[in-house]
Amino acid sequence: MTAPVSSWSAERVARVALGRLGEPGDPRLARLVDDLGAEQVYAYLREERDVAGLATDVAARLQGLDPRGDLEWALRRGFRFVCPGDDEWPAQLRDLDRSEALNGRGGAPLGLWLRGAGRLDELSPQSVAVVGARSATTYGASVAGEIAAHLAGECATVVSGAAFGIDQAAHRGALAVRGPTVAVLACGVDRAYPAAHRDLLGYVADTGLVVSESPPGCAPTKLRFLSRNRLIAALSLGTVVVEAAVRSGALNTANWAAVLNRTVMGVPGPVTSASSEGVHELIRNRDATLVTRGEHVLELVSPSGSFTVPPARAPEGPRDRLSALDRQVLDAVPVASPAASESVARTAGVAERTTRDALRRLLDAGFVEASPRGWRLAPASGP
Amino acid sequence: MTAPVSSWSAERVARVALGRLGEPGDPRLARLVDDLGAEQVYAYLREERDVAGLATDVAARLQGLDPRGDLEWALRRGFRFVCPGDDEWPAQLRDLDRSEALNGRGGAPLGLWLRGAGRLDELSPQSVAVVGARSATTYGASVAGEIAAHLAGECATVVSGAAFGIDQAAHRGALAVRGPTVAVLACGVDRAYPAAHRDLLGYVADTGLVVSESPPGCAPTKLRFLSRNRLIAALSLGTVVVEAAVRSGALNTANWAAVLNRTVMGVPGPVTSASSEGVHELIRNRDATLVTRGEHVLELVSPSGSFTVPPARAPEGPRDRLSALDRQVLDAVPVASPAASESVARTAGVAERTTRDALRRLLDAGFVEASPRGWRLAPASGP
Repeated sequence: MTAPVSSWSAERVARVALGRLGEPGDPRLARLVDDLGAEQVYAYLREERDVAGLATDVAARLQGLDPRGDLEWALRRGFRFVCPGDDEWPAQLRDLDRSEALNGRGGAPLGLWLRGAGRLDELSPQSVAVVGARSATTYGASVAGEIAAHLAGECATVVSGAAFGIDQAAHRGALAVRGPTVAVLACGVDRAYPAAHRDLLGYVADTGLVVSESPPGCAPTKLRFLSRNRLIAALSLGTVVVEAAVRSGALNTANWAAVLNRTVMGVPGPVTSASSEGVHELIRNRDATLVTRGEHVLELVSPSGSFTVPPARAPEGPRDRLSALDRQVLDAVPVASPAASESVARTAGVAERTTRDALRRLLDAGFVEASPRGWRLAPASGP
Repeated sequence: MTAPVSSWSAERVARVALGRLGEPGDPRLARLVDDLGAEQVYAYLREERDVAGLATDVAARLQGLDPRGDLEWALRRGFRFVCPGDDEWPAQLRDLDRSEALNGRGGAPLGLWLRGAGRLDELSPQSVAVVGARSATTYGASVAGEIAAHLAGECATVVSGAAFGIDQAAHRGALAVRGPTVAVLACGVDRAYPAAHRDLLGYVADTGLVVSESPPGCAPTKLRFLSRNRLIAALSLGTVVVEAAVRSGALNTANWAAVLNRTVMGVPGPVTSASSEGVHELIRNRDATLVTRGEHVLELVSPSGSFTVPPARAPEGPRDRLSALDRQVLDAVPVASPAASESVARTAGVAERTTRDALRRLLDAGFVEASPRGWRLAPASGP
């Protein structure tokens, strides 16, 4: 299994090294690599030549840098590093090249560290992100799980961030139906954050993928969460936010989805719940489309018309099949004490002859009953 | 107080008579009156001349017709009939003249029967309809009451249909803050439907208005509810739907509001609640704007910019006032065991000199503490 050291291309080695030197989502680094190529940028920084103000920032990290060692160590642990040019590199990440920055973060990742049995290029094209509050309510967690289970059951990949609350419910919903799911972390793929989700991440990796832009060993920092969120959005066709307070990382992911022209969706909740406030704000400002079920999500992210949901309707009753005229006459028929057809006609405001014809149709259909004293509703038609 | 019989104009008498002969919201009658004038149409129908197929429908109702008697009786009971040309006739009802029909109903009302101390022309121009399910949940009723109270507190008139559930909660919310409210009924203003709301309607009439297109004595029928809904929409600047199942009269009111170019708003709820399903459908299809509070409603119905709500935000913390760089350095400072500035610089991926400057600023601001062994977070900054 162990590849000889020489098999790592200089490009791959440079990207791994730059991933250790810089911070994920640093737009300066992404732009430099885009302009000069990873090898050249790595060479400059090794020579401590200052490019875009980076050299002094990364100087302290040059010591002990061993990208080949990183790659070999990862290989032994069953992790892998994918980067542009690899078959497994998802084409949709290219959208990050041209995107604007949010919170000072942006640009395409130099590469991604992967852990798991899934293939990123196969999982990403039909992915949907399901994200939300860590402090989710049981309502939110239950709805996130339902939606994720529906998506995964239809072979859509559920992407989330493995956090407490909604993220956890989303991964679990997908796992519960043995569907594909991808966890994108703000720390190295060898770590579990939160630690309580070590097992959950193991299950995700069994069939799906654990993904990170940060090299193995890295701890999650606030900045890395913000960088991570852009990857969740970029790796998905759309982002569903289930519960988010007005200040929530999930809204940052939603903003990234919007910047990247992905579909942004929100699941509403009680207006009395602070956990839904951020989602309501997204929908209210028309940045997000309201969704309540997995079908709605699929309809929005699928190619036009390939998956449509008929609007929710109550089942049609026998009354609905009556003509407007017959309904108008039926409304005028008394419940208890029978009335003559002239009286029904007068109440309905319909001509007598027309009323008599309608009453006969309603009699045949079982809506009214006739007696020598007149017409009244059949028992089953009563209010 | 009693006006002499001769004081009723022929126009008014004709409109009262036509209101008894036809059904409210019959677009044929509205169009005829628009084309020929009420007096002429009344004259034709009295002569049993068939116009637009109406004569045979109304023939049974010609007997015993006494519009002048109706007007006098109403006057004695404290009711009044207003019609186009009266000072109290609200100009906004003109929008119904040109509107399409929904469910076979449409057109401007021939006149309106009023009961109560309010003036319709004064109450309508700043009205908002708050409507919804009869089978409301406690959640829905509570939110409807809150929104109505807020609107009425800001001197907006709360228009609703006096039904059980959301309607009741809306009227009560307005009454509770001694705000203006208008109930539009599908039966005569002398009747209470539902009967349990007799007192509620009394309170509405004390300061606001009870309104109906149907003459006194009329019973509510399904058709009259559909006709009534167009008046609720027409008499308001916008309609807020709070809870509605997929088949709900409130959605008919919302459709009328849309047809009449009024603002349509919906209050979301749990996606697990059937009572919110119809509202979610309205918002999902972008026919309605999501609102969660009275302020949102006022913002949408007020003239542009006269009432705006800042987006919901969490209060800014001291951390938010730090620069991005200082935050990046702060994120790299350990919680417990102090670290040298070189180590912090390395973790943060920021140049050493820049890191030292940032640490000094963070020390002054109380975020970190310095010791001979290095830097660590000040206790209050810990996670």
